[in-house]
Amino acid sequence: MKHPLRQHIEEIIELTDEEFDFVLTHFETDKKRKHQYLVQEGEVVKKEYWITKGCVKSYFLDDNGKEHILRFAMEHWWITDYESFVKQTPSNIYIDCIEDCEFLYISFENRDRLTAQMHKMERFWAKKSKLGRIALQKRILSLLKNSAKERYDLLLEQYPQLFQRVPKKLIASYLGVSRETLSRLDS
Amino acid sequence: MKHPLRQHIEEIIELTDEEFDFVLTHFETDKKRKHQYLVQEGEVVKKEYWITKGCVKSYFLDDNGKEHILRFAMEHWWITDYESFVKQTPSNIYIDCIEDCEFLYISFENRDRLTAQMHKMERFWAKKSKLGRIALQKRILSLLKNSAKERYDLLLEQYPQLFQRVPKKLIASYLGVSRETLSRLDS
Repeated sequence: MKHPLRQHIEEIIELTDEEFDFVLTHFETDKKRKHQYLVQEGEVVKKEYWITKGCVKSYFLDDNGKEHILRFAMEHWWITDYESFVKQTPSNIYIDCIEDCEFLYISFENRDRLTAQMHKMERFWAKKSKLGRIALQKRILSLLKNSAKERYDLLLEQYPQLFQRVPKKLIASYLGVSRETLSRLDS
Repeated sequence: MKHPLRQHIEEIIELTDEEFDFVLTHFETDKKRKHQYLVQEGEVVKKEYWITKGCVKSYFLDDNGKEHILRFAMEHWWITDYESFVKQTPSNIYIDCIEDCEFLYISFENRDRLTAQMHKMERFWAKKSKLGRIALQKRILSLLKNSAKERYDLLLEQYPQLFQRVPKKLIASYLGVSRETLSRLDS
């Protein structure tokens, strides 16, 4: 059976056995318990994570200490703070685990080296980055349209399993609505 | 003197004369008058534009026909509807010219061919795509924080020349505030 990361990459580009083995040497594994952090505000993010088990959230804290959720990610999604990771500047967000999690991760240096050496992996991440950009544009459209119903429908489309796994108060925070409004949308 | 597109690409990767000439064969030129469209809702977008002169806006219309501005772009910025262009699905936004404009553009097929043949150009656009994604994440943070002042400051940082070139009512639309609120922020 193929490695799950290979299956994932081969949704976009084909790899030989040797190529995938070479790719995999650039990754390491990590585990975190529920509530542990991947990224904290103020640190320069050095790793991009590919989730093999569990579910995480990225968010920022406003001046009143209120949490605003940027996105969720679960098995076979990539996550990091891309601004901090790409520019190697301090992060202004947090990423933490909603469940016990397991990851493959790649360091900034390894990712840069791998994409410089291997056109196929540059192409893979270029496509992923384009899709990430599209997801963010959809989020902006849904925020500007300012209808809680549309934001709810988009979330359901992007993360169908999320509603079984994530506490309702986090979903309400992502949508920017109260628990009461969420119950109305949910029914 | 180097071609402006070459200068622009070489901010990220180095090209030989032969390589740049090859890149340039994948582009064509176009002109549009003020108010003409690059993209209209419902069409599958076939081109990515690099602006050589002028200023454009991308926006969508809500159910009440109200215009919500997604972004602006001017000389040496890239613009298209990335969702429609990447997925080759119908667009749900508009892009039109705020001034008379001139462009270099690349078709979907030429961009795909060029990036497949030339690792350097894959790398160039991968980097551009990462930066685009970061700009959108910043916009989401500023929308969620929901302070008109922060949105104003971010716009000023991203497009310092914009305030001289674009009607105030478009800036108010981008920020999601009234003309009166904008005057207060502006003072």
